[in-house]
Amino acid sequence: MPGFVAPSTGRVVRAVLFDTFGTVVDWRTGIAAAVSEFAAAHGLRLDAEAFADAWRARYQPAMARVRSGQRPYVALDVLHRENLDDVLSAAGFGPGAFAAGELDALSRAWHFLPPWPDSVAGIARIKRDYIVGPLSNGNTALLLDMAKAAGLPWDLILGSDVTRRYKPDPEAYQEPAGFLGVHPAEIMLVAAHNGDLAAARAAGLATGYVARPDENGPGQPGHRGATSDWDIVAASITELAGKL
Amino acid sequence: MPGFVAPSTGRVVRAVLFDTFGTVVDWRTGIAAAVSEFAAAHGLRLDAEAFADAWRARYQPAMARVRSGQRPYVALDVLHRENLDDVLSAAGFGPGAFAAGELDALSRAWHFLPPWPDSVAGIARIKRDYIVGPLSNGNTALLLDMAKAAGLPWDLILGSDVTRRYKPDPEAYQEPAGFLGVHPAEIMLVAAHNGDLAAARAAGLATGYVARPDENGPGQPGHRGATSDWDIVAASITELAGKL
Repeated sequence: MPGFVAPSTGRVVRAVLFDTFGTVVDWRTGIAAAVSEFAAAHGLRLDAEAFADAWRARYQPAMARVRSGQRPYVALDVLHRENLDDVLSAAGFGPGAFAAGELDALSRAWHFLPPWPDSVAGIARIKRDYIVGPLSNGNTALLLDMAKAAGLPWDLILGSDVTRRYKPDPEAYQEPAGFLGVHPAEIMLVAAHNGDLAAARAAGLATGYVARPDENGPGQPGHRGATSDWDIVAASITELAGKL
Repeated sequence: MPGFVAPSTGRVVRAVLFDTFGTVVDWRTGIAAAVSEFAAAHGLRLDAEAFADAWRARYQPAMARVRSGQRPYVALDVLHRENLDDVLSAAGFGPGAFAAGELDALSRAWHFLPPWPDSVAGIARIKRDYIVGPLSNGNTALLLDMAKAAGLPWDLILGSDVTRRYKPDPEAYQEPAGFLGVHPAEIMLVAAHNGDLAAARAAGLATGYVARPDENGPGQPGHRGATSDWDIVAASITELAGKL
């Protein structure tokens, strides 16, 4: 039987749930590749990495409008698609510059992001002793496509469309526990982002930090590592598996 | 790419979802074993198979009260536990005859039912080309425990506590489609029960029948086989996989 007791909660961990974008999958490489392909098909000259960064930069503001109640919950797929229009507009492409179906297909690149090299093996190892799943702002269909394409061996997938809450709202961390049949303190959130972990800790969960220094591009400045005494700190999901 | 077109819908199937109790797992053998163990621990003489049948017989009536709106949705775990009290009462054991914790543990036997011999291999094969998951009246925690114990390789688990609907309500069949990102007609329900399949067909899903003649015990009368022209009729989940 697994027996990792999280120092912060004093409870044995029963489920290990993962932030996905940046923690399990390399969104920037995946999105830049899809943007490059789209640009080539249309004979456009654009910086695919910068485009990916601009698209991602609209992620938190778009969710903030849902979290604040300004707008009812809509799936992340909808926000990604709206944000794509917005990035294209900022780049000088008006409505109608491209067929809607092509933009829908480009936006679905968020469903098919490549895993970091240690993700599949690490999750598979943790799965032997714990419940494993995503705890992501992605909707279920997005996370399902991602899992099947990347081979992520989740036990179950409960997207943000199940709780209709976006992290870092506390309910986004706490409500999955009821579905899993565990106490929130028996869940460890694994993430590469200190803010996500801080919100999870405030919501009563155990925390595991995985360093992803290249999330925003190789050699990008600003990577600070773990900024708190998370229950586990590791350089990869496989290393985290060994510490559990 | 998979390409099974269901005759009844004219659509390519993208997700194959399974009824669980009786179709994927052998509830009667599992429950009778747990009841036997409980009886032995308490020095009771009782017919474990008959007890299992009596417990199961209370399943539909208990859900009917939720479906009719007489009572709000409660998880199947709650109904199983209440029904256990009821069966014990009918057998002459009043409240307090056993410790509540022991009855809770006995009721959790519904989480740990053995798969039929072809279930794991058949689902694994279907998973290569289709989304696979349960479409069960079980709640997510029950289905999760079952999957981990039996090795059922689901892509995802959305229990009845996600939609808060019990089959055969049409919403129980239709609402999972939104989470999966598919049309209801792109889902095939696989079940050993003609009534479940009839309701799924009425709700717009494709249908697959798997014969489980021993569900109610070896050599039990009343097994009629497929009673309609379901899109696939098979003797096992492995045979169904071959026909997809």
